[in-house]
Amino acid sequence: MVVKSQIKLIKSLHQKKYRKEHGLFLIEGKKGINEALANGLEPYLLCSNISEMKTTFAYEKVSKLELEQISALKNPNGYVGIFKIPKTKSLDFSNWILVLDGVQDPGNLGTIIRLCDWFGISQILCSKDTVDCFSPKVVQASMGSITRVLVYYEDLEAVLSSCKKEIYGTFMEGNAISKIDFSIPGIIVLGNEGQGISKDISNLVSKKISIPSFGNSEAESLNVASAAAVLLYEMRRVRP
Amino acid sequence: MVVKSQIKLIKSLHQKKYRKEHGLFLIEGKKGINEALANGLEPYLLCSNISEMKTTFAYEKVSKLELEQISALKNPNGYVGIFKIPKTKSLDFSNWILVLDGVQDPGNLGTIIRLCDWFGISQILCSKDTVDCFSPKVVQASMGSITRVLVYYEDLEAVLSSCKKEIYGTFMEGNAISKIDFSIPGIIVLGNEGQGISKDISNLVSKKISIPSFGNSEAESLNVASAAAVLLYEMRRVRP
Repeated sequence: MVVKSQIKLIKSLHQKKYRKEHGLFLIEGKKGINEALANGLEPYLLCSNISEMKTTFAYEKVSKLELEQISALKNPNGYVGIFKIPKTKSLDFSNWILVLDGVQDPGNLGTIIRLCDWFGISQILCSKDTVDCFSPKVVQASMGSITRVLVYYEDLEAVLSSCKKEIYGTFMEGNAISKIDFSIPGIIVLGNEGQGISKDISNLVSKKISIPSFGNSEAESLNVASAAAVLLYEMRRVRP
Repeated sequence: MVVKSQIKLIKSLHQKKYRKEHGLFLIEGKKGINEALANGLEPYLLCSNISEMKTTFAYEKVSKLELEQISALKNPNGYVGIFKIPKTKSLDFSNWILVLDGVQDPGNLGTIIRLCDWFGISQILCSKDTVDCFSPKVVQASMGSITRVLVYYEDLEAVLSSCKKEIYGTFMEGNAISKIDFSIPGIIVLGNEGQGISKDISNLVSKKISIPSFGNSEAESLNVASAAAVLLYEMRRVRP
């Protein structure tokens, strides 16, 4: 049984303030919950309104109405897991770090987390004004990858100005990424959806890179998640 | 002045049925409207509640309330353009055609249209159950590219079974795209978000291709728009 005060607590986790206060976040759906458990995330409470729960983990039975109350989805899918926000280790500068400077859209961040998982990038460093990676929409869009990729929120300027690595940043006038030697791990910065990389961070970029458009394209830019897809692919592409 | 019956008509265009019936669709925002006009789309009616409209085109002045009524956005931005749905020419098989088999998410379709614009692919052929490219969310996500890329809705099986071109399709077990010779234009098929390419269309694919993940990635798949980003980039990448 789940008591009223728990329902109130879980509902509060839709908001960043309370996720931070309680150190908890939601994963919805049986598959995502199972992946989180398999990846060692610590469950706080697992709820379901499905009668036949063939699972090795203890789910609390809730009513359909209760599930609708605690779910952040328009169409809840029967399973809501509340997990402890994992502790991050220190950043490992000997491996690639993807830096996000002010990404606002939850769908974009979720997609980028999923891309990092696919392309074997295990660390994302976000500016403090980047959308929270534990928001329900980000978790959903990451399709389980949030349980495998570490996401950090730091003062970007402080971290980047003291690091000794090559810092790549995407700019319209940068060098084509197919010509860049990505053999030594460094840092890659992607910027905000509308504004790109902020001025302070631009000043710290040591190599400007770009994704060339084709022919006489009149398109002005790529969506930040599309840019991440192309970049990470190119970084990991085996060169002849 | 915009009369009540026009407001009702414009509001109806939020729905596919009425877009089809009237042959009209919405573009919101000054920039998008200007791009549409520059690209030769025929305006039916342009509305704005902004007093100081420095523009060479005739906008009808509407009240803030009226604009909120006709807009499909949560936060309308002052300009709603109603345009005639452009007539498509016949498909040109001498150039690349991107085929979408059952893509459902408007954000994904909009992003894919924007990607095609960036990478110089001017034709997208969709199955009839793919989301409508003139839905307000798709138009918004395409960031103006819907006015430059032609989108067709056809019986995919009929078109693909009678065409003589190489038909590439993305599958988990396909050949790595970096090893494919994309020098002769053909057809590339991407599938539905959850199900991938349908069985009937799979049977028509002549070359199975895939985007390799890196190392021991546990991620199951890429989002369809991310896959499109990587694929189109690789197709257009200049090889040594």
